[in-house]
Amino acid sequence: MKLGSLEPPPLLKLGGSVVTFKDKVETPNLQAIRRLSREIADAKPPSLLVVHGGGSFGHPYAQAYRLAEGYTGGRMQLAGFTRTREAMLQLNSIIVKALNLAGVPAVGLQTSALAVTRAGRISSLNLKPVLGVLRLGGVPVLYGDAVLDLKQGFAILSGDRLSTALALKLGSRRLIMGVDVDGVYTSDPKVNPNSRMVRELNVHGRRFRAILSGIRGSRAVDVTGGMKQKILEVKDFVSKGGTVLIVNALKPGNVGKALQGLEAKGTLVKA
Amino acid sequence: MKLGSLEPPPLLKLGGSVVTFKDKVETPNLQAIRRLSREIADAKPPSLLVVHGGGSFGHPYAQAYRLAEGYTGGRMQLAGFTRTREAMLQLNSIIVKALNLAGVPAVGLQTSALAVTRAGRISSLNLKPVLGVLRLGGVPVLYGDAVLDLKQGFAILSGDRLSTALALKLGSRRLIMGVDVDGVYTSDPKVNPNSRMVRELNVHGRRFRAILSGIRGSRAVDVTGGMKQKILEVKDFVSKGGTVLIVNALKPGNVGKALQGLEAKGTLVKA
Repeated sequence: MKLGSLEPPPLLKLGGSVVTFKDKVETPNLQAIRRLSREIADAKPPSLLVVHGGGSFGHPYAQAYRLAEGYTGGRMQLAGFTRTREAMLQLNSIIVKALNLAGVPAVGLQTSALAVTRAGRISSLNLKPVLGVLRLGGVPVLYGDAVLDLKQGFAILSGDRLSTALALKLGSRRLIMGVDVDGVYTSDPKVNPNSRMVRELNVHGRRFRAILSGIRGSRAVDVTGGMKQKILEVKDFVSKGGTVLIVNALKPGNVGKALQGLEAKGTLVKA
Repeated sequence: MKLGSLEPPPLLKLGGSVVTFKDKVETPNLQAIRRLSREIADAKPPSLLVVHGGGSFGHPYAQAYRLAEGYTGGRMQLAGFTRTREAMLQLNSIIVKALNLAGVPAVGLQTSALAVTRAGRISSLNLKPVLGVLRLGGVPVLYGDAVLDLKQGFAILSGDRLSTALALKLGSRRLIMGVDVDGVYTSDPKVNPNSRMVRELNVHGRRFRAILSGIRGSRAVDVTGGMKQKILEVKDFVSKGGTVLIVNALKPGNVGKALQGLEAKGTLVKA
């Protein structure tokens, strides 16, 4: 199955800190999910693929059962793998339902049934169901998930890593990342009030390393690494000509503007 | 990823009439699900793969939105496709949870992210996640689902068709089908009290066509065809040396006995 006459879709990644309350277990941010669903519906993108993070659905379990380390043996950890994946499915269902209610033809797809990793890197990614949804005019909605791993049994496949892999495989040019801060800062803005936001970040530029080293990981529970890891994940996609726009998805209007190609406050990552 | 040193697992298909109440919308038969979970746990099969049907979760929506006919265009039908798949995910979650509580290391996998059909026949089936679960000693739990279709947009992939495809691809020898009747009858036992049960059905035997023509479809809402279609679905698997045991899974003990290779009342389908 090929995209055929379809344009590769832009990708929208919605962070776990946006779609959930990270400090409460399995608590979706329904207000944000519903508002973002309306913004997406109003933007009427010709095609779109959405990926969301785990937030308080995936991360607490993944951390408690040490899933990122891989399978260390034992029924308990395997049960934890299942519990994490089931929690992620529930979050995906909530988001898919909200999108449909807003008029976006969202179709959820379980990431761990599509992707298998080897030592955490994507080894195979079955695009056929994704392409099938796009061909029907639907919006596939995937997510960061605990997946089977050829080397270590299982692994965490972050929404960020999945997004860039999908963008590269589909030939997409644009990845919009909705996060809970205004963009990339020279240091963590939640800790340092003097940190400055970077409007444009060139991954081949002189300042790239300096800025990257200044970024501290998110303080919230995040088994997938926060902003620094996010930049590292998209570097390959950006090096190959894609652009990544990081915007604050908790502030109304940003995601809608970005989807319409209008100017939205944030950090543009490019090469 | 290969099965490697693992034996191909036996397959257990649990019918929609077993795991749900077919006459009530989205109503699981929790008592049956919990009892069957204990029977599976007690049987301690070295490996196992479970497939379940849709019952009152999948069929009413699939029928209302005419999914079996494929995509006829329009947002409503696409929304129906999503609604059917989301309902099936919820049923799968309930079953996976019950199995885990009973001590069976069940891992749910979304069928529509694994399989794509062409005019209703399986065109591709991604076994990598399934094998990944089996290698960890887990029990993959798949189900009949509304899937993407290369020709008609989407289609219904029945749990029966999926079971036999998985059994053939994995090289399994045994498929146990848990249904809501005692086995194959010469006519519908729910309608005709004089119908006789067939203890052994040879798909290459002289009486095969006669018995097949006597079977009437299930009266319950079933977009996938009932007992007659079930026999036709397993014919290929049986012709290639597999055996299929059809037992009443609503009667305690049958599935447990079948899993342990003990004699269980039912119909053995073979070549």
